[in-house]
Amino acid sequence: MPDLVSIDEIRAAAVRLDGIALRTPLVPLRTSPDATFAPDSLAPGSLATGSLAAATRTAWPRLLVKAESLQPTGAFKVRGAYNAISALPAELRGRGVVAHSSGNHARAVAYAAALLGVPATVVVPTNAPRVKVAAARSLGAQIVTCEPSLAARVATVDELAARHGYAPIPPFDHRDVIAGQGTVGLEIAADCPDVDLVVCPVGGGGLVSGVAAAIAATCPGARVVGVEPELAADARDSLRHGHRVAWPATDAQRTIADALRADQVGELPMQHLLGQVHDIVMVTEEEILAAMRLLATDARLVAEPGGAVAVAACLFRARELPAASRCVAILSGGNVDPELLASVLGQEDRVGAGQAAGAVAP
Amino acid sequence: MPDLVSIDEIRAAAVRLDGIALRTPLVPLRTSPDATFAPDSLAPGSLATGSLAAATRTAWPRLLVKAESLQPTGAFKVRGAYNAISALPAELRGRGVVAHSSGNHARAVAYAAALLGVPATVVVPTNAPRVKVAAARSLGAQIVTCEPSLAARVATVDELAARHGYAPIPPFDHRDVIAGQGTVGLEIAADCPDVDLVVCPVGGGGLVSGVAAAIAATCPGARVVGVEPELAADARDSLRHGHRVAWPATDAQRTIADALRADQVGELPMQHLLGQVHDIVMVTEEEILAAMRLLATDARLVAEPGGAVAVAACLFRARELPAASRCVAILSGGNVDPELLASVLGQEDRVGAGQAAGAVAP
Repeated sequence: MPDLVSIDEIRAAAVRLDGIALRTPLVPLRTSPDATFAPDSLAPGSLATGSLAAATRTAWPRLLVKAESLQPTGAFKVRGAYNAISALPAELRGRGVVAHSSGNHARAVAYAAALLGVPATVVVPTNAPRVKVAAARSLGAQIVTCEPSLAARVATVDELAARHGYAPIPPFDHRDVIAGQGTVGLEIAADCPDVDLVVCPVGGGGLVSGVAAAIAATCPGARVVGVEPELAADARDSLRHGHRVAWPATDAQRTIADALRADQVGELPMQHLLGQVHDIVMVTEEEILAAMRLLATDARLVAEPGGAVAVAACLFRARELPAASRCVAILSGGNVDPELLASVLGQEDRVGAGQAAGAVAP
Repeated sequence: MPDLVSIDEIRAAAVRLDGIALRTPLVPLRTSPDATFAPDSLAPGSLATGSLAAATRTAWPRLLVKAESLQPTGAFKVRGAYNAISALPAELRGRGVVAHSSGNHARAVAYAAALLGVPATVVVPTNAPRVKVAAARSLGAQIVTCEPSLAARVATVDELAARHGYAPIPPFDHRDVIAGQGTVGLEIAADCPDVDLVVCPVGGGGLVSGVAAAIAATCPGARVVGVEPELAADARDSLRHGHRVAWPATDAQRTIADALRADQVGELPMQHLLGQVHDIVMVTEEEILAAMRLLATDARLVAEPGGAVAVAACLFRARELPAASRCVAILSGGNVDPELLASVLGQEDRVGAGQAAGAVAP
């Protein structure tokens, strides 16, 4: 059984990523369609006789959104990709890298490889969003397509690696990748030291693993909860059964959250799930779309469907989350086709206010 | 003639705003529809033999967007409003405050007043966007409507102040308001010390004045350029003539950039324009919409029309800007009606690539 990724590995990644990854802000979001725009932890007038220092402590609402959508490639993936490629021995790196991805990891590998002067080949499933594939191509990466299953992706990568000597950069099951994603957790702990709940999207499990490792070391009292679409809930099943469970791509691919369609979590992420993740909750497709709309209108942030699931859980599944007084939800990516975003904005919330009434931290 | 707002006043505002205003990030944006997603100041491979410290200096593209749209009220206005209200003597503050605004200042005053426990009344023109007025109302502010001219707004505020003893919080022509907005410039100078061009929207001139004062003191080699819609170019005319020129509301209100429809700049802002602002350039309505679209798709940021004019100038009017190697454009607000944003996203760029070819910093 592999050792968990350590806080030292995550701190080393943070040094490599200084100036490469954006230090993304924690953006406040009202937690219910019925809430006022006022900070929900602050009764009007409560600062009237207080000091400005008191205001500093209480002015934020309980839900803060870690906006990884603002990264140069539009998703957190640039952290792990850059960390893994820059950690390769120079000789290996010189031959080039290869990666498989539903889109955001491909774009991140292409970006990091361009920065480091490394040739990149990315393997994308035939159903990957065109906006993500086009971005990887425009960064100079060679694009190879394959069937939309994890097995097909891995086989294609293995073949390219064997034939050309490329170094594979896995999307999640790799400790340098997980260490890079863990810098998201380091930043949350530094910028919001009293956080007691971190809610995080789960696809292959790289992000939630790194974040959970960072939070366990820096905020031991805080809990980390993963979120999946109910149409791709393999990690929830895996955590419940205590071992990895695969959901066939034919089922899992039905969710609109293309970034979270991995058939199953990785082996190393499974160890982090078992040891460091408190729970995994599910959200519906409608809740995802409603969260995308609220993020755009109330936090002025563009989210892709997979990026919005943690916010959706805080808005609509608060009763399934542990009680918390300071919650951070990770918005993991914003690479959405403009037509989909337009369609989401053009319709009123389809999720009733009743469902949303129990917003985060009851 | 009033003294210009000093760097000391801006630094004092920064202390008051710590924990109230978000420290907004500088988000990289590709500068031309034809550009690749790669950092445009970085040739592929240029870091292959370089150090990570070198990467830190060169990994950003030339255009950085200061995302004030992420503030709790969706615009920079919370800085000036909170600074001005918290600077009032306690006795005066206790009677309540009154402000006029096309929307974002109203929302900011309502938000800051709620934090400080002060009753707020906001005067909004009949043509203010409903999303902004609704937000101010939901924060507990009393709403009074008036005709959409600066004269009508001021008269209404004066009457309410005289009748109820409310303290007026002007939207731009007030040194505490300007000092608060100036903290945007302080943050730009701190986070991007080699900036040599700051491009800033101009309505009544409060933001550009504060930013210019901060930049003049902290980055004396950098230039500050204001941007207006060509349908509301009173500040450009004022700078050209050396004194304030008014554009009647009936003309100026035609621009889609509702946040920039002030009939004329303030008296104190006029002094900052003359002394500290290098130039003012204009953008068309189509350029504003194209910039909104590019911000959403490429920087994952929601902009309102008035918030997007500085980015529009960097994208489409680069030849009219001074040469620069490190440019920051201020995205001043993101409170846009969802239907307008959906419409912008649903259509391809209407501004040709030819017009955009001369992107920032030729």
